[in-house]
Amino acid sequence: MSRIDGRTPEQLRPISIERGWSKHAEGSVLVSFGDTKVLCTASVTEGVPRWRKGSGEGWVTAEYAMLPRSTNTRGDRESVKGKIGGRTHEISRLIGRSLRAVVDYKALGENTVVLDCDVLQADGGTRTAAITGAYVALADAVAWAQRKKLVRAGRQPLTGTVAAVSVGIVSGVPLLDLCYEEDVRADTDMNVVCTGDGRFVEVQGTAEAAPFDRTELNALLDLAVSGCDRLATLQRDALEATE
Amino acid sequence: MSRIDGRTPEQLRPISIERGWSKHAEGSVLVSFGDTKVLCTASVTEGVPRWRKGSGEGWVTAEYAMLPRSTNTRGDRESVKGKIGGRTHEISRLIGRSLRAVVDYKALGENTVVLDCDVLQADGGTRTAAITGAYVALADAVAWAQRKKLVRAGRQPLTGTVAAVSVGIVSGVPLLDLCYEEDVRADTDMNVVCTGDGRFVEVQGTAEAAPFDRTELNALLDLAVSGCDRLATLQRDALEATE
Amino acid sequence: MSRIDGRTPEQLRPISIERGWSKHAEGSVLVSFGDTKVLCTASVTEGVPRWRKGSGEGWVTAEYAMLPRSTNTRGDRESVKGKIGGRTHEISRLIGRSLRAVVDYKALGENTVVLDCDVLQADGGTRTAAITGAYVALADAVAWAQRKKLVRAGRQPLTGTVAAVSVGIVSGVPLLDLCYEEDVRADTDMNVVCTGDGRFVEVQGTAEAAPFDRTELNALLDLAVSGCDRLATLQRDALEATE
Amino acid sequence: MSRIDGRTPEQLRPISIERGWSKHAEGSVLVSFGDTKVLCTASVTEGVPRWRKGSGEGWVTAEYAMLPRSTNTRGDRESVKGKIGGRTHEISRLIGRSLRAVVDYKALGENTVVLDCDVLQADGGTRTAAITGAYVALADAVAWAQRKKLVRAGRQPLTGTVAAVSVGIVSGVPLLDLCYEEDVRADTDMNVVCTGDGRFVEVQGTAEAAPFDRTELNALLDLAVSGCDRLATLQRDALEATE
Amino acid sequence: MSRIDGRTPEQLRPISIERGWSKHAEGSVLVSFGDTKVLCTASVTEGVPRWRKGSGEGWVTAEYAMLPRSTNTRGDRESVKGKIGGRTHEISRLIGRSLRAVVDYKALGENTVVLDCDVLQADGGTRTAAITGAYVALADAVAWAQRKKLVRAGRQPLTGTVAAVSVGIVSGVPLLDLCYEEDVRADTDMNVVCTGDGRFVEVQGTAEAAPFDRTELNALLDLAVSGCDRLATLQRDALEATE
Amino acid sequence: MSRIDGRTPEQLRPISIERGWSKHAEGSVLVSFGDTKVLCTASVTEGVPRWRKGSGEGWVTAEYAMLPRSTNTRGDRESVKGKIGGRTHEISRLIGRSLRAVVDYKALGENTVVLDCDVLQADGGTRTAAITGAYVALADAVAWAQRKKLVRAGRQPLTGTVAAVSVGIVSGVPLLDLCYEEDVRADTDMNVVCTGDGRFVEVQGTAEAAPFDRTELNALLDLAVSGCDRLATLQRDALEATE
Repeated sequence: MSRIDGRTPEQLRPISIERGWSKHAEGSVLVSFGDTKVLCTASVTEGVPRWRKGSGEGWVTAEYAMLPRSTNTRGDRESVKGKIGGRTHEISRLIGRSLRAVVDYKALGENTVVLDCDVLQADGGTRTAAITGAYVALADAVAWAQRKKLVRAGRQPLTGTVAAVSVGIVSGVPLLDLCYEEDVRADTDMNVVCTGDGRFVEVQGTAEAAPFDRTELNALLDLAVSGCDRLATLQRDALEATE
Repeated sequence: MSRIDGRTPEQLRPISIERGWSKHAEGSVLVSFGDTKVLCTASVTEGVPRWRKGSGEGWVTAEYAMLPRSTNTRGDRESVKGKIGGRTHEISRLIGRSLRAVVDYKALGENTVVLDCDVLQADGGTRTAAITGAYVALADAVAWAQRKKLVRAGRQPLTGTVAAVSVGIVSGVPLLDLCYEEDVRADTDMNVVCTGDGRFVEVQGTAEAAPFDRTELNALLDLAVSGCDRLATLQRDALEATE
Repeated sequence: MSRIDGRTPEQLRPISIERGWSKHAEGSVLVSFGDTKVLCTASVTEGVPRWRKGSGEGWVTAEYAMLPRSTNTRGDRESVKGKIGGRTHEISRLIGRSLRAVVDYKALGENTVVLDCDVLQADGGTRTAAITGAYVALADAVAWAQRKKLVRAGRQPLTGTVAAVSVGIVSGVPLLDLCYEEDVRADTDMNVVCTGDGRFVEVQGTAEAAPFDRTELNALLDLAVSGCDRLATLQRDALEATE
Repeated sequence: MSRIDGRTPEQLRPISIERGWSKHAEGSVLVSFGDTKVLCTASVTEGVPRWRKGSGEGWVTAEYAMLPRSTNTRGDRESVKGKIGGRTHEISRLIGRSLRAVVDYKALGENTVVLDCDVLQADGGTRTAAITGAYVALADAVAWAQRKKLVRAGRQPLTGTVAAVSVGIVSGVPLLDLCYEEDVRADTDMNVVCTGDGRFVEVQGTAEAAPFDRTELNALLDLAVSGCDRLATLQRDALEATE
Repeated sequence: MSRIDGRTPEQLRPISIERGWSKHAEGSVLVSFGDTKVLCTASVTEGVPRWRKGSGEGWVTAEYAMLPRSTNTRGDRESVKGKIGGRTHEISRLIGRSLRAVVDYKALGENTVVLDCDVLQADGGTRTAAITGAYVALADAVAWAQRKKLVRAGRQPLTGTVAAVSVGIVSGVPLLDLCYEEDVRADTDMNVVCTGDGRFVEVQGTAEAAPFDRTELNALLDLAVSGCDRLATLQRDALEATE
Repeated sequence: MSRIDGRTPEQLRPISIERGWSKHAEGSVLVSFGDTKVLCTASVTEGVPRWRKGSGEGWVTAEYAMLPRSTNTRGDRESVKGKIGGRTHEISRLIGRSLRAVVDYKALGENTVVLDCDVLQADGGTRTAAITGAYVALADAVAWAQRKKLVRAGRQPLTGTVAAVSVGIVSGVPLLDLCYEEDVRADTDMNVVCTGDGRFVEVQGTAEAAPFDRTELNALLDLAVSGCDRLATLQRDALEATE
């Protein structure tokens, strides 16, 4: 029994990681997980927020947003509403935490990197695509900072790589990398963030309909780990290519 | 090797669940997990939000907030700042989802229950205390709605019970129900929400310092399940006592 | 003709002043005027707002708020609405002015005390309960600052005590310390703040229905002065008790 | 010993009440208390706010604001700051309550009158000038509504007149109608709103420096009553003049 | 074929420029273009915004607003709505740019002038009246700064004069200085800002109904230039009169 | 003397108009003017805003925004700041007015089209690129509405085409279609919006440094008209291509 788009349960959507998308940003990636497209830019500035000044340590943060018509029905702009919604806040925080898990603040020195992840087109899994793409943009930005001598010679601010994928149970079957239609129908939905060496940075599982048991949880974790492993390879390939 | 407050790794703090704390609310509970104290009130109103009208189904939602001096250092009021922070949004959403996991909207009918969880004193684990207390307030509010015939005779809007606890790895040791000092020092921090029959509603694990592996994850899940089981018993005891 | 709760016209509701309610705040009081319960915390910080720096003088300010279900019908949170209502502003300002009337800024030195008055349960007279309780929390906070040597030895930042009570005319009869049901039915409503030696700090009288004449005004002031005198005694008793 | 501007203690500043200032509003008055100038417009609309619909009763409300350079030092616009300050809220509410004290909602019928009081130039006593001027604008607006048959024939929506004045104790002397320089130096400051027949609508006394005793309070009330009486005469004269 | 108010197509409304309207501001003008009345105040402060500090150059900025009942129908206050509308933003920016076109920042030195343009009564052309009046207020404020030695002796911060007028095509006829009724019926509406020597600072033409061709554009520009020339004369006359 | 990027003064940058960029929107265009890239989506909904209901007429509006790192230096998000800046408001309004100039509301019927113009990369001329691209997105959306029978058979809601271009005087030379570096150095900057038949919809000229005279204005208008004419051809070509 195949999935809505013909994939097997353990198959990712077609992934593309396009570096150097923007001429201004120190790192920029247009990442696609199928029809989900997220523009991730990494902006480097010297200095850190006030509460961190003089610590000798850097800072990495992230902001996530969706263009109003990235979705099937147009959503109101948060700038027009005058406030940021809970979902946006939650995802921005998740992306920031995920990337910070592989940053050595001391090695980064008192520099700040802001990752902007703007969803140009949404089809499920926007937060996991954002994390996966933002890592590559961050790597490019860090390399830029090294070339510009903002980072001291011989220091490596990145302690590893990080990628993310969604998994879920749809009609009783655990599936990897849900598209929007699958996401809507999922009983359980989980986002997993892993380092390139297969350890967990974040595990966020939610029972959308019925609560899930330990067996289901284990099956989802297995799928997610294999998906993140594949994404780590794609990230490495992208970074090794000449930009 | 005992914990900062003398507990064993798998021991909860002293838990108290005080029902009927407020004379106005349809359900109200002052819940304590050690020095963490959260006032949970459940407010029932007839009718549902506009987008749900005519569906025959009810709605349950939650709002979490901290009093400015519930913490060691005074925090600015979100009402004064004019906006709600990401953490507040995130926790409010988590509490709402957790309770909705045991609600049968059809049986509830077109009624709305709002759970307000206000932290009077914080010492770690405020969100898990809030969920655990809010369930009891919700149960009282539902009983009130049944007595007032807002819920049709013979319908049971609650499909089970729900409780939550935090777990974490501190200095390499998995611990149950972290107090603030432990929470600050934890490498990994996880909040787990379970139903009374031991299934998962939410699993949110975050690597605060080093990423965690599958073995650690499993140890944390074991601890959390046993903690939630104990909390479920305490909830039942509280609800069986004469208010 | 007795009152709704059996009191005589010149009788206060049962008053309780519970010190040391919070483990974090430098001063904290749970004050009750009958069913009205307000948690008052006093937070001390070294330093003063920018406009007062270098003056050698301290600052005292207050913020008042109601929990959403402290009232009979749930009110929306001001943090969610994104702005503070006029009534909240008005009461916060009243509390701050009332306490500042007994503060010697020079003696306080460049320290700031913030009084947070959060209404946990409302049954009329929340602002007067808040002032009465906040004074006691302030006294504890000042004593703390003296012990911590933030205030110079031999200086007494408090020049007196302050308490407040509501009075009103209901069905032609002047009454002391209105509960909610009386407040709603009052033709005239007055809040009076007095120092412990019987002088006035604030007099705020409002004709809710018919305007009032000088005779009525005098009767209300007499009641209020006697009520504040009784509250001053209760404050003194509370502060003399071992916490 | 004369005052800063040569007045006796019981003397008002030169008062002017200029009706018909604006071509658009149903009632409009430029009121001056010395150098304090407030433009008061009354806007009539058919219908009432949602919560009052179907009651057969009208509504009267007020908004107060200061132009940024109405004061000696320019103040930031509240529209630019994105929120209304506590003082503005407080005064808007006071003006609204004061005018409502002489309105018969039933006679007004389901019409709304909004009083806008914008301070063009401030020199103390802006809120009392606003109330005094707004009453006249309201009277003109009500007459307009009667001519337009929005108010039923034979009904009189105004049950009396209302005026306001400030009083205060400066260097131990009770003074009527404080100008800014006096206001700044006052130990006690009181705003009193009276009906044309000499009864009280609002009494708001504040100890700016030292608390005040009953004798001082009485002296201030005497001054205020005589000041309001004089203002009531000036309001009557203005309304009797051909516009 | 004469206009609604009897003017010829190339005739301005009666213009009045009343200096020294406010006792507080360094420059203040009540400007009228027919029934359109705008109060323009110029506030001088030593120092410049942070981004300009140390440059040796001054700054000039403007804020425009309408009183709620300056218009035929009452508009909600932007302070109450909590945000500034697009039209207000647009006009404030236009006024600021227009005045800055005749300011020599170096000669002004590190001083800031804020122009507040508050519409007391609106009847079309409020932005052009505001610019024309604000220039005169600015000239008075600059003269004040010269007298106070904030501007160095021998420096002239103003490089010329600036005035503005609206033009439009109504029923096929190009008209100067539209009143509200004409503005509403105009096919094309243009605001033109000129220096006293007849050059352009701003040209903003908008096709309200049908697009306009080059011939119409030229006719409108001719009218506008002649109108601005006449306004420049009136500004000079006002500034030469003893205040 | 050639331009910074080798163009002649009357030459446009390379223009690309890529239709069908988004799978969700009824019309979507990625438009590039050199390195300036704007994503324009057109969203059609049945129905109109409240104030237009029952009129039988449609509505077209636009919102413009820049991604935070579309510019050389990262700008703060307006959603995070909680308010929309003046420049954003101004451009959104300009785009809306420009498109409405070629819309027949009656023919559109009670449908609403929202144009979202999000700048992905900025290099000068973002507002003119947005208008030019948005027109094509609008045309596609209108065709969609015709196919879906939202627009009645035989009605044509578009009365013409519209395009926009910037012109300016740099070092005394009038130039077409300024890139960012030219824009920064321009003495005069003008944005011109024309219909496909060469008439003007908007003319907005601003003296950035020295005021400009009639001769310069005429030279700029000539350049702009020829540029818009060329853009009209490119729009037509794009729309005639199979999507």
